[in-house]
Amino acid sequence: LVESWSFLDTAESDFRPLVVIELAKGTKGETIEWFTKRIVDKKANGGAQLLIKPLVTENGVENIYLVGASHLRLLLGAETVGLVKECSDNSMRTFTYSSRKTFKHFADDNHSFLTMAECQYIIKHELENLRAKDEKMIPGYPQAKLYPGKSIVRRLLTSGILVQIFPLHDREELKKLSHSWYGRVKVGYQPLDDIRCYFGETIALYFGFLEYFTFALIPMAVIGIPYYVFAWEDYDKYVMFATFNLLWSTVILEVWKRICAILTYRWGTLLMKRQFEEPRPGFHGVLGINPVTGREEPVYSSIKRQLRIYLVSLPFVCLCLYFSLYVMMIYFDLEQWALDYHKENESDFSSLMLYVPSIIYAVVIEIMNRIYRYAAEFLTSWENHRLESSYQNHLILKVLVFNFLNCFASLFYIAFVLFDMKLLRQSLATLLITSQILNQFAESLLPYWLQKRYNRRIKKRMCSKKTGVDLSLAEQVNMEKEMGTYLGTFDDYLELFLQFGYVSLFSCVYPLAAVFAVLNNITEIYSDALKMCRVYKRPFAEPTANIGVWQLAFETMSVISVVTNCILIGMSPEVDALFPDSKMDLVLTVALVEHLLLAIKFIMAFVIPDKPRDIQMKLAKLEFESLEALKQQVRAFQMQLHFLLIHH
Amino acid sequence: LVESWSFLDTAESDFRPLVVIELAKGTKGETIEWFTKRIVDKKANGGAQLLIKPLVTENGVENIYLVGASHLRLLLGAETVGLVKECSDNSMRTFTYSSRKTFKHFADDNHSFLTMAECQYIIKHELENLRAKDEKMIPGYPQAKLYPGKSIVRRLLTSGILVQIFPLHDREELKKLSHSWYGRVKVGYQPLDDIRCYFGETIALYFGFLEYFTFALIPMAVIGIPYYVFAWEDYDKYVMFATFNLLWSTVILEVWKRICAILTYRWGTLLMKRQFEEPRPGFHGVLGINPVTGREEPVYSSIKRQLRIYLVSLPFVCLCLYFSLYVMMIYFDLEQWALDYHKENESDFSSLMLYVPSIIYAVVIEIMNRIYRYAAEFLTSWENHRLESSYQNHLILKVLVFNFLNCFASLFYIAFVLFDMKLLRQSLATLLITSQILNQFAESLLPYWLQKRYNRRIKKRMCSKKTGVDLSLAEQVNMEKEMGTYLGTFDDYLELFLQFGYVSLFSCVYPLAAVFAVLNNITEIYSDALKMCRVYKRPFAEPTANIGVWQLAFETMSVISVVTNCILIGMSPEVDALFPDSKMDLVLTVALVEHLLLAIKFIMAFVIPDKPRDIQMKLAKLEFESLEALKQQVRAFQMQLHFLLIHH
Repeated sequence: LVESWSFLDTAESDFRPLVVIELAKGTKGETIEWFTKRIVDKKANGGAQLLIKPLVTENGVENIYLVGASHLRLLLGAETVGLVKECSDNSMRTFTYSSRKTFKHFADDNHSFLTMAECQYIIKHELENLRAKDEKMIPGYPQAKLYPGKSIVRRLLTSGILVQIFPLHDREELKKLSHSWYGRVKVGYQPLDDIRCYFGETIALYFGFLEYFTFALIPMAVIGIPYYVFAWEDYDKYVMFATFNLLWSTVILEVWKRICAILTYRWGTLLMKRQFEEPRPGFHGVLGINPVTGREEPVYSSIKRQLRIYLVSLPFVCLCLYFSLYVMMIYFDLEQWALDYHKENESDFSSLMLYVPSIIYAVVIEIMNRIYRYAAEFLTSWENHRLESSYQNHLILKVLVFNFLNCFASLFYIAFVLFDMKLLRQSLATLLITSQILNQFAESLLPYWLQKRYNRRIKKRMCSKKTGVDLSLAEQVNMEKEMGTYLGTFDDYLELFLQFGYVSLFSCVYPLAAVFAVLNNITEIYSDALKMCRVYKRPFAEPTANIGVWQLAFETMSVISVVTNCILIGMSPEVDALFPDSKMDLVLTVALVEHLLLAIKFIMAFVIPDKPRDIQMKLAKLEFESLEALKQQVRAFQMQLHFLLIHH
Repeated sequence: LVESWSFLDTAESDFRPLVVIELAKGTKGETIEWFTKRIVDKKANGGAQLLIKPLVTENGVENIYLVGASHLRLLLGAETVGLVKECSDNSMRTFTYSSRKTFKHFADDNHSFLTMAECQYIIKHELENLRAKDEKMIPGYPQAKLYPGKSIVRRLLTSGILVQIFPLHDREELKKLSHSWYGRVKVGYQPLDDIRCYFGETIALYFGFLEYFTFALIPMAVIGIPYYVFAWEDYDKYVMFATFNLLWSTVILEVWKRICAILTYRWGTLLMKRQFEEPRPGFHGVLGINPVTGREEPVYSSIKRQLRIYLVSLPFVCLCLYFSLYVMMIYFDLEQWALDYHKENESDFSSLMLYVPSIIYAVVIEIMNRIYRYAAEFLTSWENHRLESSYQNHLILKVLVFNFLNCFASLFYIAFVLFDMKLLRQSLATLLITSQILNQFAESLLPYWLQKRYNRRIKKRMCSKKTGVDLSLAEQVNMEKEMGTYLGTFDDYLELFLQFGYVSLFSCVYPLAAVFAVLNNITEIYSDALKMCRVYKRPFAEPTANIGVWQLAFETMSVISVVTNCILIGMSPEVDALFPDSKMDLVLTVALVEHLLLAIKFIMAFVIPDKPRDIQMKLAKLEFESLEALKQQVRAFQMQLHFLLIHH
C-alpha cells in the first residue's frame, strides 16, 4: 500500500508555490525536520503528501516555507474536500477522481481545472487535517502536548511555533482582477465569478450581497429624493413612502435568498456536503472521550461554559449596555448645551455648533463599537466553545445586541421619549454620514495608506525599482507576510446591517437616508475591493452556501422597522389631525395597520420560494439521481448476496 | 440472475395473510391472471415476488385475494423501504440484510422481528412500486392506459378494477391492545409503543399528541377552575391568567417538539430517509418527459394549475367565507330576537331560549365545516397537484382558513365590534361544548353504533354464534372489507386545532374553556381509540417523524391569541379604570405589553432546542459514523485506483 502512493512524488518537477508557512524565528531544527517530514510524508504513513521548499532569500533561510502539490495530488484533494464542479452536461456534481473525464474543461494536462484559490483551500484543508499519530508532544517543545488525532498545525499555531499560514497572491491574476473590478470607473456589475475564483465564495458572496443591496436600495433612494427636493412634509406621502419601504425591504430580503441560491449553485457550494466539524483551535480542556466520535480529545464541561456565559458574559454585556446608555445621556446634555449656546449668541458658527454634539457622539459610538468588539471576542473565546460555529453564534449575538443599542438607542430616545422629529432627522443624518465616513476611512483608506508607505519603505530597503508585478518570489513573500490579515466578512456585514437599520427603522422621517446609503455603498464596493486586493494578505477561500446568520439579522431588523415606522406615523401631527374626535381610534388604527403589515410580511416570506424553480428542479434531479444510485447499489448488493447464499 | 432470486419461492409453506386485495365484481380473467402473475413474479422479471392466494368462502371465489410474503422477502423489503430498528448496542440504525445479526431481537427464526404493521407497510410499498414494463394498457381494459414506470396498482385503483387494498387486523393482538388502551378505566399513559406497533407511527403520534396536549392543558384548567368557583372578575387575576396562558402555550408547543423527537427517535422514523416522491394516484396529464427523473410520465402545465387555483379555487373560498359571514349575521339576528323574546315574557323557558341561537349556530357551523371539507377536497384534487404533499398543503390551507373564520368570526365580532363580554362568554361556552358533543357523536359513537348493527346483521346472515376472535379467516375478511376506511389524522388534528383556538384566543374571558377541553380530550382518547379498533378497517402504517404542518398551525394560533388577549384585557373596564386620565396611555401600554409578549414568545421558541440533548448527541454520532464510513470508502477507492494505475 505504501508503494501504491509513491507515484505522486515523481511529479515534483512542476513545483508551484501556493501557500506560505512562516515559523517563529529560532524554531528548533528537530521541530522543523519533523514538521516538514510529516507534510511530505506519504498518505499511508499519515502524512499530507504535499511538496514543501524553504524560501531562500538574500539573507539566507528565514524559516519561511513554500507549500505546493502535484496536479494529481490536488485532484485527489478536491475529492476529499468534496468540491462541486460543472459537468459537460452543465449540471453540477461532486468531483471524484474516477469521474474526472465527465467534468467540463477537464483534461489531464489542463492545470487550470482547479482555480488557484481552490488549490490553496485544498492545501489548507490537508495541512489542518495532518493529525498526530503516536506523538505525545511536538518534538523539541515538551510543553506543546499532542494526542492521537490532534491537528498538528493547530497545536503549532496555539503554541506560537507556527506564526502564520497564508496563501500567495497571483500577481498576474490580481492585476487582471483589480482592473476589471475597480480599475476603471464603469457602470455595471462586479466580476463576481472572477472574485469567487480568486478569493473564494464567502468573500464573493459578500460582494454579491453588497452589490445586490445597493441596487435594491436605489428604488427607495429614487423615491426618497423628491421628499428632500420639494420638502414634502405631507402625511400621506410619508405613509406611502414608509409602506413601500416596509414591503420592499421584505421583498428584497426574500429575493436575495433566491439570488444567493443561483450564485452558490453556479459556484457549486449549494450542493457541497457539510463536513463534520472538528473542535476549534483555541478549544482546551482535560483529555477525555468525546461521546459522539468516541475519540480522545479535550473535553470541557458544558455546565462550566453555561456558568461562564450567564454569570460573567451576560452581566458584562448588560454593564456595557448600561454604559452605552450613560454615554447617550451625556450626549443629550451636550445637545442641550449646544442649543442653549445657539439661542444665546445666534451666529453661523453657533448654528454649525449644533451639529458638533452629534458628530462627537457618532465618533464615540464608533470607538465604543470597536472596543466592545475586542471585549466580546475575548469573552467569547474565554467561554471556550468547542465548535467554531457555536463560537461565531455567541460572538455575533453579543456584538449585534450591543451595536444595535449603541447605534440606535439615542434615535429611539429622541423619537419615542422626546417626540422631537426635527432632532431625530438631524441626529439620524449626522450619525449615518459620520459613521459612513469613519468606516470607509478606518477600514480601507487608512490601512491602504499605511500599506503603501510600508511597501515604499520595503522597496527602498531592497533597493529595487521594480513594479509590483516583476517582484521576485522571495520579495513577494516578504512583502505579503507583513500585510494585515483579513479577519473575515463579519465587520463588513455588520456595517451593512447598521446601515440597513438607519435606512429602514426611521425611513418615514428621513427618506434621504437611502440616498446616502446608496452613495456610500458604491464607494464601499471600491474601497472594499481595494482593501481585498492591495491592503490585506490574500485570505484562504472559504466555501459557503449563504450569508448565514446575517439573513436572520436583516429580517429581524425589517420586522422591528415595521413597528417603529407605524409608531412614528401614528405620532405625526398630520395623522393626529385625521382623528380629531378620538385619540383612541387613531391608536387602534395604527395598531391594526401594524399588525396587517406584519402579517403581510410573514405571508410574503412564506409564499416567495427561497430557491428559483429551475434551481429547485436541478436539486430535485440530483437528489433523485443519488437516491436511484443508492437503490441500484442496494439492489446489486442484494443480488450478490443471494448469489452467494445459493452457491455456498 | 433470475435463478439467484428463486430460493425465495421455497419458503412459501408458511403463508400468513397480511393484506387483502379486493377486485371489482366481474373483473376479466385475463386481468386477474396478469395481475397475480406480476405480484408473484420474480424481482428480476420486474415482479414483486410476494405470495398471493384467493380467498375461498362458502359462496366460492369472490375476487378477494390475500397477499403475504416469506420472512426473507420481508427482511429484504425492510431494507428497501429503509426501516430503522434498534441495534444490540441500543443505537438506532437503518436495517440492512447484511447487518441483520447486529439488531436487537433478531434471529433467523424469530418472525416477530418485524411487527405486523411493518410487514403490511412493506407489502403495500412493494405493491405500489409494481411498475409497468412494456404494457401499453391493463390486459382486458384497453381504456386503462399504462406506460413504462407507471404504478400498476395506482392505475388499477383509478380505473376501478381494484376496489381496495387493506391490511388485515390481527384479532388476537387487537384484543390485547384494546384492553390495555381503553378496555379498563385507568389513570396513566396510553400504550403508545403498542399503538405504534399495531397502527404505525402517524396514528401513534396523533394519540401521543392528544395525550400530551391534554396533560398540558391541565395546569390551565386547574388555574381556571377557581375563576368559575369564586366568580373572580378582578382585572389583575385575568391578566395573570392570560399571561400565564400565552407563555404556557408557547412552552407546550416547544416542548412537544422535543417529546416528538424522543418518540420518533425510539420508533426509528426520526432517522428514516425521505423517499423520492412519486406522482399521486389521481394526477393526470398528457404523457411527457419529467425534467427531474427523465422518465416518461403524465405532465401537467404548472400555469394551468396556477390558473385553476387563482381563478377558481380562490374565488370559491372567498365566496364560502362570505357565506359563512352571512350566516353569522343571521345568527346575530336570531340572538337579538331571542333577547327580545326573553325581555317580553320573562320565564324559565325564555331564559333557556337564550341559548338556542348559539346551539343552532354551533350545529350549522359544524355542518358547514363538513360540507366545505368535501368541496375543498374536490377542488384541490381538481387542481391536479402532482405530489401528495403539495395536494395536502393546499387542502390543509383551504380548510384551515375556512374553519378558522367559520368558527371564530362570530366570537371576534362579539368581542371587537359589539364589545359584549357577557355574550362572548356565553357564545364561546355554547360553541365549544356543542361542537365537542357533536364531534364525539359524529366521529365515533354514530359509526360505532352503525358498525355494531351491521356486524350483528352479518353474523345473523352467516348463522354463526362465534365471538369475534374465533371467526374464520373468510368471515373476518368479509366483515372487515365492509368497514369504513379511516381517512387519516386530518380531522382529528383539525378538531384539536379548533379546540386550541377556543381555549387560547379568548382565554382571559373564559378560563373555564380549558376545563372543558381537558374533559373532552379524556373522552376523546377513549372514543378515538374505539374508532380505530372497532369501527374502521385497519389502516396501513405510515412512518412519520413529526406532526408536520400542524405544528405551524398551532404556533400561528398561539401568536394570534397573544394579540386577541391583549386587546381583550385592554378593553376591560378594570384596566380602563387604571388609566383615568388618558386613554392614549392605556392603548400604548397594551401595545407595548403585546409586543413584549410576542418578542418573549419568539425568543423562547428560538432558545428552547427542538431536540433534547441526548437525541442531538445520538444524531451527531450517527452522522459522524456515516461521514467516517464515506471517508473510508473514498480512501479505499483511491487506494484501489492508484494500485490499478501502477500495475497496469
